[in-house]
Amino acid sequence: MTGNPISPTVPFDQDGINHGFLRLPYSRDDSAWGSVMIPITVVRSSDGPTALLTGGNHGDEYEGPIALQELAATLKPEDIRGRVIIVPALNHPAFLAGTRTSPVDQGNLNRSFPGKPDGTVTQKIAHYVDTVLIPMADIVLDYHSGGKTLDFVPFAAAHVLENKDQQAACVAAMQAFNAPYSATMLEIDSVGMLDTAVEQKGKVFVTTELGGGGTATARSIGIAKKGARNLLKHTGILSGEQELSPTVTLDMPDEECFVFCEQGGMIEPVCDLGNTVAEGDIVARVWPIDRTGANPVEYQAKRSGILMARHFPGLVKMGDCLAVVAKVV
Amino acid sequence: MTGNPISPTVPFDQDGINHGFLRLPYSRDDSAWGSVMIPITVVRSSDGPTALLTGGNHGDEYEGPIALQELAATLKPEDIRGRVIIVPALNHPAFLAGTRTSPVDQGNLNRSFPGKPDGTVTQKIAHYVDTVLIPMADIVLDYHSGGKTLDFVPFAAAHVLENKDQQAACVAAMQAFNAPYSATMLEIDSVGMLDTAVEQKGKVFVTTELGGGGTATARSIGIAKKGARNLLKHTGILSGEQELSPTVTLDMPDEECFVFCEQGGMIEPVCDLGNTVAEGDIVARVWPIDRTGANPVEYQAKRSGILMARHFPGLVKMGDCLAVVAKVV
Amino acid sequence: MTGNPISPTVPFDQDGINHGFLRLPYSRDDSAWGSVMIPITVVRSSDGPTALLTGGNHGDEYEGPIALQELAATLKPEDIRGRVIIVPALNHPAFLAGTRTSPVDQGNLNRSFPGKPDGTVTQKIAHYVDTVLIPMADIVLDYHSGGKTLDFVPFAAAHVLENKDQQAACVAAMQAFNAPYSATMLEIDSVGMLDTAVEQKGKVFVTTELGGGGTATARSIGIAKKGARNLLKHTGILSGEQELSPTVTLDMPDEECFVFCEQGGMIEPVCDLGNTVAEGDIVARVWPIDRTGANPVEYQAKRSGILMARHFPGLVKMGDCLAVVAKVV
Amino acid sequence: MTGNPISPTVPFDQDGINHGFLRLPYSRDDSAWGSVMIPITVVRSSDGPTALLTGGNHGDEYEGPIALQELAATLKPEDIRGRVIIVPALNHPAFLAGTRTSPVDQGNLNRSFPGKPDGTVTQKIAHYVDTVLIPMADIVLDYHSGGKTLDFVPFAAAHVLENKDQQAACVAAMQAFNAPYSATMLEIDSVGMLDTAVEQKGKVFVTTELGGGGTATARSIGIAKKGARNLLKHTGILSGEQELSPTVTLDMPDEECFVFCEQGGMIEPVCDLGNTVAEGDIVARVWPIDRTGANPVEYQAKRSGILMARHFPGLVKMGDCLAVVAKVV
Amino acid sequence: MTGNPISPTVPFDQDGINHGFLRLPYSRDDSAWGSVMIPITVVRSSDGPTALLTGGNHGDEYEGPIALQELAATLKPEDIRGRVIIVPALNHPAFLAGTRTSPVDQGNLNRSFPGKPDGTVTQKIAHYVDTVLIPMADIVLDYHSGGKTLDFVPFAAAHVLENKDQQAACVAAMQAFNAPYSATMLEIDSVGMLDTAVEQKGKVFVTTELGGGGTATARSIGIAKKGARNLLKHTGILSGEQELSPTVTLDMPDEECFVFCEQGGMIEPVCDLGNTVAEGDIVARVWPIDRTGANPVEYQAKRSGILMARHFPGLVKMGDCLAVVAKVV
Amino acid sequence: MTGNPISPTVPFDQDGINHGFLRLPYSRDDSAWGSVMIPITVVRSSDGPTALLTGGNHGDEYEGPIALQELAATLKPEDIRGRVIIVPALNHPAFLAGTRTSPVDQGNLNRSFPGKPDGTVTQKIAHYVDTVLIPMADIVLDYHSGGKTLDFVPFAAAHVLENKDQQAACVAAMQAFNAPYSATMLEIDSVGMLDTAVEQKGKVFVTTELGGGGTATARSIGIAKKGARNLLKHTGILSGEQELSPTVTLDMPDEECFVFCEQGGMIEPVCDLGNTVAEGDIVARVWPIDRTGANPVEYQAKRSGILMARHFPGLVKMGDCLAVVAKVV
Repeated sequence: MTGNPISPTVPFDQDGINHGFLRLPYSRDDSAWGSVMIPITVVRSSDGPTALLTGGNHGDEYEGPIALQELAATLKPEDIRGRVIIVPALNHPAFLAGTRTSPVDQGNLNRSFPGKPDGTVTQKIAHYVDTVLIPMADIVLDYHSGGKTLDFVPFAAAHVLENKDQQAACVAAMQAFNAPYSATMLEIDSVGMLDTAVEQKGKVFVTTELGGGGTATARSIGIAKKGARNLLKHTGILSGEQELSPTVTLDMPDEECFVFCEQGGMIEPVCDLGNTVAEGDIVARVWPIDRTGANPVEYQAKRSGILMARHFPGLVKMGDCLAVVAKVV
Repeated sequence: MTGNPISPTVPFDQDGINHGFLRLPYSRDDSAWGSVMIPITVVRSSDGPTALLTGGNHGDEYEGPIALQELAATLKPEDIRGRVIIVPALNHPAFLAGTRTSPVDQGNLNRSFPGKPDGTVTQKIAHYVDTVLIPMADIVLDYHSGGKTLDFVPFAAAHVLENKDQQAACVAAMQAFNAPYSATMLEIDSVGMLDTAVEQKGKVFVTTELGGGGTATARSIGIAKKGARNLLKHTGILSGEQELSPTVTLDMPDEECFVFCEQGGMIEPVCDLGNTVAEGDIVARVWPIDRTGANPVEYQAKRSGILMARHFPGLVKMGDCLAVVAKVV
Repeated sequence: MTGNPISPTVPFDQDGINHGFLRLPYSRDDSAWGSVMIPITVVRSSDGPTALLTGGNHGDEYEGPIALQELAATLKPEDIRGRVIIVPALNHPAFLAGTRTSPVDQGNLNRSFPGKPDGTVTQKIAHYVDTVLIPMADIVLDYHSGGKTLDFVPFAAAHVLENKDQQAACVAAMQAFNAPYSATMLEIDSVGMLDTAVEQKGKVFVTTELGGGGTATARSIGIAKKGARNLLKHTGILSGEQELSPTVTLDMPDEECFVFCEQGGMIEPVCDLGNTVAEGDIVARVWPIDRTGANPVEYQAKRSGILMARHFPGLVKMGDCLAVVAKVV
Repeated sequence: MTGNPISPTVPFDQDGINHGFLRLPYSRDDSAWGSVMIPITVVRSSDGPTALLTGGNHGDEYEGPIALQELAATLKPEDIRGRVIIVPALNHPAFLAGTRTSPVDQGNLNRSFPGKPDGTVTQKIAHYVDTVLIPMADIVLDYHSGGKTLDFVPFAAAHVLENKDQQAACVAAMQAFNAPYSATMLEIDSVGMLDTAVEQKGKVFVTTELGGGGTATARSIGIAKKGARNLLKHTGILSGEQELSPTVTLDMPDEECFVFCEQGGMIEPVCDLGNTVAEGDIVARVWPIDRTGANPVEYQAKRSGILMARHFPGLVKMGDCLAVVAKVV
Repeated sequence: MTGNPISPTVPFDQDGINHGFLRLPYSRDDSAWGSVMIPITVVRSSDGPTALLTGGNHGDEYEGPIALQELAATLKPEDIRGRVIIVPALNHPAFLAGTRTSPVDQGNLNRSFPGKPDGTVTQKIAHYVDTVLIPMADIVLDYHSGGKTLDFVPFAAAHVLENKDQQAACVAAMQAFNAPYSATMLEIDSVGMLDTAVEQKGKVFVTTELGGGGTATARSIGIAKKGARNLLKHTGILSGEQELSPTVTLDMPDEECFVFCEQGGMIEPVCDLGNTVAEGDIVARVWPIDRTGANPVEYQAKRSGILMARHFPGLVKMGDCLAVVAKVV
Repeated sequence: MTGNPISPTVPFDQDGINHGFLRLPYSRDDSAWGSVMIPITVVRSSDGPTALLTGGNHGDEYEGPIALQELAATLKPEDIRGRVIIVPALNHPAFLAGTRTSPVDQGNLNRSFPGKPDGTVTQKIAHYVDTVLIPMADIVLDYHSGGKTLDFVPFAAAHVLENKDQQAACVAAMQAFNAPYSATMLEIDSVGMLDTAVEQKGKVFVTTELGGGGTATARSIGIAKKGARNLLKHTGILSGEQELSPTVTLDMPDEECFVFCEQGGMIEPVCDLGNTVAEGDIVARVWPIDRTGANPVEYQAKRSGILMARHFPGLVKMGDCLAVVAKVV
């Protein structure tokens, strides 16, 4: 078994704050002795729990990277008890390219766990997170948003787990994050996800979807920043009062939540994110893009609830998820 | 002088409704005898004025194409007096690709007027619009939005013109369109625009910016649909009452409205579209994308007003326009 | 072991005819929640054998997809006894792109069996065919042609198998298909092929090469259509008389059948498909493409027979197969 | 006015045979001091007329380049009286790439005449042909075929010209070429063609379409080789008897000959090249490529005649020419 | 006539030092309101002559950009009399890409003069240099090197001009630059060059070739730095003694200096830059890249002298310049 | 276990000299029945040891391929005793493309050992070398240079091995190669290398780094040619005196030898290859590429020695190795 080739330029076990890189040698046509350099900040102060905060698991999602860049630039060792490991852009090649997957190997990091030490660049990153970073953590927060092709109402999520104590700890952490919406979800296809890698090690895990479209807004960034600090307070790493607002609890009980496109074209959303829809309501029309005078294909909600997610770009292909309707609990 | 190679498959002077194409022969590696087929609908009923309604001048802007597809599919000859020419996607190759400019020749259609009959595909389209479509029209509405890289508060606009009677007619048409925001603008660099091609022929012209990000929402589509019908009523082509709501009047008096990025990175918007900002307020921060622990570059408003436009994608390059602050009149 | 992520939108065990898709979730940069949608038709009527008919294993071969689209659009449940599963374009991403291999992962589907449920898109398709579709079938017909880079005389083929009963059943099915040429072949390098996946499960298998060049003709399509219906009659699924014409039996006994190019250039075929050649005859010349006045390299047949296959494009590279000469039995 | 930058490495006015290049300096990223090197052969023997024989005007058409490579390699000065200038691949960058247009500048050489000495690479080639090669010639033969996207019955063609003496000379030369089919055509859109450049200078001009699909066959190459030698005999440059066979005269009187595709998909040809069709006959069906169970769009001949040309690749896009039906005279 | 759209962010007529940009609006798919930002430094101190120092005319040549970055970072207004305008990377998009020509429009800036205000990005840059920067200058130094595909012995050059006073001033400036080699050259094909644009305005002009291969060395950078300061001293802008070493004078009297490749392959240089060669000496061999056991093509010097330039990459194409042999005066 | 699909067209066990190919079937979109053809020469004469000489392991390194092409073209069976197997371009697809890794599968051959018979093209090549070529050899010489992105002082190298007898044999062979510099190195990360594949089989192994930049010089080629012949003499395959010059012994004892770039930009080397540097000396500056007036980042040597290697291209990215300082023993 070969070891993971990533070497950190920062110490994990030293008090104070250190900014540096996870350096991953990457030999390629335009640099025979080049490296992928994943920025990392480690803040540590005496004993206490460790929180691992990650963004940029997908490279086109921005609330996490912005909130974590701000946290890395402002958090002080004297403010905390324990350790905070901040990686704002886990799949750094994808983040630099502004794409969901890595331009280097087309790797979707969140489908690459537990990774391989001698695999592709993306698999090596997954392996390092799985074997080095996660084992150091007590709690992991992995930020997501919709990216360039999806848009979400802002929510935090915990998973339904077999270990109910672990699940309760995750739900409590999700509530501490305190996004406008909260969801406890049964992950049906969890193969390859960072979520699974964390949860299988018995750690507390929170994830989010805080917006989308490949951008961020002042509002969505505010949710992301508040969530991270609330979580650190919840864990006891930061002291002080959590900042809490009401949250709406959502549920996605089954496949009926999803509306898929069966004929590509130009999408006309008929309701917007957060709107209430009743079963049978039209949620979107898809117009042909090659002719006028033809009728659009209409897509209806298969259950009542609120519009929780939607396809973002103006054009849509057969097989794309057009909309997600979630039940309000 | 060679003639324009585009041939329409629909008649312009026949009563009734006809859906068809502007067929532009385009010989290329993957089809020696291929064509660009631009969808067009012509609705005509006895005598009366002609309105030319166009979308997709830039291929990644959707409010116009959606509103015009709907109009083409629902407008009936018996409802109108005069003629409505509808081209939902003027730069059709760009529209199919979902890009601002044409994938065929990198042409920015709105910088290609008056075009050339023996030029590139985009120049041929411009030339046909300039020499055939615009001359038939009394009034022209050209829909725009921000596309994939900009986002706007929804506004309609008329231009400051030398002919004050023409300008008044344009302003009246803009008011009939009745977007939430309205702007009378001095176009400083008008070379190559469809706007200029229309105005130089003494026609009434209205343009818009109705959103952006390369998508559309139920709300922004509603503005686009209402605007077209209001405009047709204003012109007397459609009968009936215009549907009118209050509109905010904006002014962009000078270069101080624009905030440009001088160091690329990840953008953190500090205020959202429509928010009030005072001169000196920070409107955006730009974070480095290659390291943690460094401070962001902060950009301030150079005048007071509302945030009227912003760079949309999460990453920004040196030289990109970060934000536009407009004065509320 | 993870399950295959493909879900069919049609029932396999219900009488009647159902058109739908094999939906394969495929998260990518331009659609985070997108899918590959492989069209499928299932026709069923009471008990009886099951035939699986597939085309588009390679995406640039058209006789199969055309014949199967026509069959799916015209076959009626009341005409059959048993079940017909029709997948006109197995490697659907390749078919949409008009390429031999998949643009998604460069996968050659016919070298990807038995596939992997957690592999690439092409491997997932192979795995689904291997574990779900083939087990349901009694007989499998997989259409091939030469694609964009090869051209063949039209033939159907069965393989030399260890189980001589199975081989006899395959040869009988090949004869029922009744292409102008027929070949019983020893597959030397059968690793990864659909053929092998079917034969290893003890099923009856027929394959074809019906033309090539990345196109189809009225004549070659006629052969493909007739072959499918003959085969269904042979199996007893369709009733009625088979339509039979004389067929020429070919044999490719060894490596001497193949003529390889050892110097790239422009190919001048000296004989055409179906022509008789004697050992030592020149079958092709290859001219330099960078100068005039130089002699071509000439390639001779290494055995006597007919020209059964040829390199199709006008340019040829070192290592390409220039021609195949088969023995007439 | 700048001069044309092309310099020949062969003399035009020297008896004997010389093989060399038209060298066109071309500075580019991968060779700052590079050149395009267009192969050329000049054969000369005392006084007599000059024939200019060209192929590869489009880079994916092979009958001309093969016949001309053979002619350049075998023609001897002692066999001729006069001069033969042979350029097998006029648009050499396109020929090397196997594409209709140039990969260097996307130039369609046959739409680039009369060219520009300081334009793109393709325009410089056109300008050199127009100002240097054509003026030296008495007769010009420019070989064409359908290329990768069209297929034709093999024909030679002359144009309807204002100067009827010139037209008669062209028709006589076409008859000497003696392809299986012959056509005297009115070129409607002749802007930018080599044909026009030659005819405007009062020279005799013959063109051809000898097949297509981006390949050549022993049969079509035979037609091309025979045609060139017949033409040289007709001109008196070569002595000896012309080799003549019967030819079918075709006419394409109007736009009704052309059948265009109005819905993209997979093409099913219903008749083959050279087949007789009656007005109203279905010539092709176009099947959807994204679903089964839907009917194809059917296209009918708009006049009676024979199928003279067809779209070659298996997939077809809206706006492509599907078929051409020519009248047999 | 439209004006040039470039606006400088620095003043040209103000004492002191200013670092900023030439901002050129550039609307494109990934930034609708983006700009090309060409870095510029202006140093000024009371009256005196103006020197314009430019690098990055081709984007893969580094001695100039490095020397000018250093000069811009260290030159102080108090050290000079007059004005120094420094543009280290004129074709900034090409410089960022590390390519000879611009990735934006494939423009070779040094073939684009005098440019166009409404042309491509490269043409707009040329036009601004031609109409704004050059007219302000008394002397212009434009740094070149061989770029990624050529390598040179380090030399400065002046041109043979019709105005012999101007030529003498240029030669004197070249001698002040004091590269190891110096050349007075007759530019045969001067169309589109910055050189010509400067000389036609009667200004003093010096150019260089200081190395190549797409890199720079400590030695070649030293030559570049010394040359700029010597030139400023020569002009009287900087005071102090010029630093002078012996220089070898080269001459390239005719076409015989150049050795062109007529068969592509792998180049084996037989002598190195600066080596003495006699007429008939082999300067390079070109080996086949597709087979062993074949002999290389050998290329001989057509005159005696020193090897002044060579093709740099290991592979070479037909038509590339292999070597230049210059006469030592 | 499937066998390796590569078949050689030359015999390995026959006296005399044979030039041919390792033919690897490679089915792809542009040639369904295509092959990779790796040139190979086998020279054999009665009994004696076998030397395997390889170049082009990385496709942009030229000293090896040139020296081996020359050797294959000039070595005569009568000159040797034993066998010489020459493969000038092991990763032939990469060599044809002039890139480090294969354009076919992005494979870095020197990280692909021991390979896979049913893997990618690069893995199949590695597997063939590992299972067929290396087992036949007594000694293996694998040429390397820096390629397009690195440059080295010319050295030969042997590895520190557990088996000290084997190490001594390797060191002796390295000394016989007699490059200007010699290094005995501890390979820290040897996974996947050809070196390891050879050494693990107990064979004698020598490798080199003879220059770089994606080119070769007369001087570096001389070193490569002399080295191969010296090695064959050392082994007893060639008779005659070795040609020996003094060599400098280098050592790279630890990570302190390497200087990595932590901020991308334009590199200014401050010392050249072979120069002596002291610990703390600046070896390179990196200038910003987007602005003037900013200071460069300076990089210092972390130990004393000579500059042994450097980043070659003018631009450098974060994480690239800027320089290597080796200790002179």
